[in-house]
Amino acid sequence: MTTTARPLSEPGRIADPDEGISPAELAMAGRNHSLLLEALRYDVTPAGLHYVLVHYDVPDVDGSGWTLAVGGQVTNDLVLDLERLRSYPAVSAPVTLECAGNGRAHLRPRPVSQPWLEGAVGTAVWTGARLSDVLADAGPTDKAVDVVLTGADHGIERGVEQDYARALPLAQARRSDVLLAYEMNGAPLPPQHGFPVRVIVPGWYGMTSVKWLTSITVTDKPDEGFQNAVAYRFKADLDDVGEPVTSIAPRALMVPPGFPDFGSRRRIVEAGPVALSGRAWSGNGPITSVDISTNGGRTWQDTVLEPSLGTHAWARWSTTWQAAPGNHELCVRATDATGASQPLEPPWNAQGMANNAVQRVPVHAR
Amino acid sequence: MTTTARPLSEPGRIADPDEGISPAELAMAGRNHSLLLEALRYDVTPAGLHYVLVHYDVPDVDGSGWTLAVGGQVTNDLVLDLERLRSYPAVSAPVTLECAGNGRAHLRPRPVSQPWLEGAVGTAVWTGARLSDVLADAGPTDKAVDVVLTGADHGIERGVEQDYARALPLAQARRSDVLLAYEMNGAPLPPQHGFPVRVIVPGWYGMTSVKWLTSITVTDKPDEGFQNAVAYRFKADLDDVGEPVTSIAPRALMVPPGFPDFGSRRRIVEAGPVALSGRAWSGNGPITSVDISTNGGRTWQDTVLEPSLGTHAWARWSTTWQAAPGNHELCVRATDATGASQPLEPPWNAQGMANNAVQRVPVHAR
Repeated sequence: MTTTARPLSEPGRIADPDEGISPAELAMAGRNHSLLLEALRYDVTPAGLHYVLVHYDVPDVDGSGWTLAVGGQVTNDLVLDLERLRSYPAVSAPVTLECAGNGRAHLRPRPVSQPWLEGAVGTAVWTGARLSDVLADAGPTDKAVDVVLTGADHGIERGVEQDYARALPLAQARRSDVLLAYEMNGAPLPPQHGFPVRVIVPGWYGMTSVKWLTSITVTDKPDEGFQNAVAYRFKADLDDVGEPVTSIAPRALMVPPGFPDFGSRRRIVEAGPVALSGRAWSGNGPITSVDISTNGGRTWQDTVLEPSLGTHAWARWSTTWQAAPGNHELCVRATDATGASQPLEPPWNAQGMANNAVQRVPVHAR
Repeated sequence: MTTTARPLSEPGRIADPDEGISPAELAMAGRNHSLLLEALRYDVTPAGLHYVLVHYDVPDVDGSGWTLAVGGQVTNDLVLDLERLRSYPAVSAPVTLECAGNGRAHLRPRPVSQPWLEGAVGTAVWTGARLSDVLADAGPTDKAVDVVLTGADHGIERGVEQDYARALPLAQARRSDVLLAYEMNGAPLPPQHGFPVRVIVPGWYGMTSVKWLTSITVTDKPDEGFQNAVAYRFKADLDDVGEPVTSIAPRALMVPPGFPDFGSRRRIVEAGPVALSGRAWSGNGPITSVDISTNGGRTWQDTVLEPSLGTHAWARWSTTWQAAPGNHELCVRATDATGASQPLEPPWNAQGMANNAVQRVPVHAR
């Protein structure tokens, strides 16, 4: 009966320098899909085109039986059903969500995990109750430190069996824009986006926007759960305690121009004026400029930047490129109001977090 | 300016025996997503969980400006807009679509293309006009042989620049269940599923269910387009002319039981009775039985099979497995009314078409 001696759940690892994508990474890539980059054309991403990362399985949750337990360091324990959650003032906002692992597959060597290239992003209009309103009803005690958000997604990860959970510091959880969302783009949440209720933390990478939310627990000390203490951290090596991953670093992406080759996804355009456009976003402040390079990053030109769709949603940029015949490498780079921009080379860390190196798009003009 | 000497569009190839998934294959895997296997629990697959294969780009199509040209070997050329198409009798049916390349990444050696594991499938309720009704209005001449269906998806593939197109023999095109669909699960088609209008050919692999349909051309000889004459064929080697890929071979899949390990996707269940279920389908007739093996295919037991959702839609199967502690390899195998079943080992061909080898799910019972 025993068919393998492999451990049930393996530790984190870094791929060998010349190691191709493994079968396990391919299995993740086939489940967790990126935004198709041409879908950057839509202000609001249709649900089926928005990036999806599911740590374990999409759980089988019945909306009518769903309840949310609020407890821990609070004066009033609460149990909310959907009707009660909907009785709080509803807030809608466009929010750009991005996976903290976006860009991981471009790292050398490559941390082995979900092998994102650059499309782990999307913008949806989320509608829900404010987490702060629910917390106000529960009444955090003066010992309250963290707010632990737990979902129904169950699995094992590097040996730790868990319901997926992430904590927010109380001050962040009290932000008026953090939502317990029950609608995406005006419809009930699709199963893969957290039906019936998920958290939305605008400006932060997606890991804290916990899906399939089942409980909110206020703690009297900083959360030591796997996803906060181990997984979503910037680590110099896999033994490093590291620093927490929080807000989204600036990034711009372009709609790949022209048309693709099926096998390589390389692009072909007609020489002459080529319209270029895309989106840019940052969790740390408004985007102030987007530059493009048509020579692999040697020289840069400014583009036209439109107002963002919302405080924590992407902004459209556009420009026209006079394409000479031949091969080119297009790059795009965003800068935000803090002055932060995107590196030309991927910033490496042992878990492949927040690689916001500039997008590079090889194009042949004919 | 010239950054590469590689050809713009490369020929087909077979991976080296020990070659990992390439960056280009990963780029395809990150765009074209499979059904998350736990979504086999839904009778009808929500749009965002249904498999998606986009050969080139999702085109930017404006529904209000969309027209469909019908011409070639017909008495009356037609130009239909959406309103006119909706004036034909509307037909709705649940249909299971599967990509012809499903299972390709399990082949050794591996044909290099979209590296599907086994989830390139989904079942939706499609609503539209009958292609046969539109053809009847156009009036095929007595020279009519093939019906070429062309979409707005433009690209280059193995050196051939093209709008994606597939042909159906006239007799197939006249089947009363072939649809020009404008709704999926009761809503307008999502962009990635062919907005505003796509073809649905029940029982055939998905390649003929052309998305973003722009024209229907009746020809007086068999179509020699790339997708019919080159791409979707069973070939012994890449120089072989091969045989056309048409209807869907039988396949069963299971909802992976228990919960997964994040990194490997391997499953863990509690020892004792474990509910197993999934779906089975064939393009060639009703599913007559679904068997499971809990020992890697050495012995098999029957399962309980429910009626299918429709003539060309999947059927649910279920059983209970008494799991002893230890490691197991679960397999599932469908048989259809023609007597066709699934092989234990992948049937190899040079383009990786229709690999319906039994699914194998390693499970640890604790």
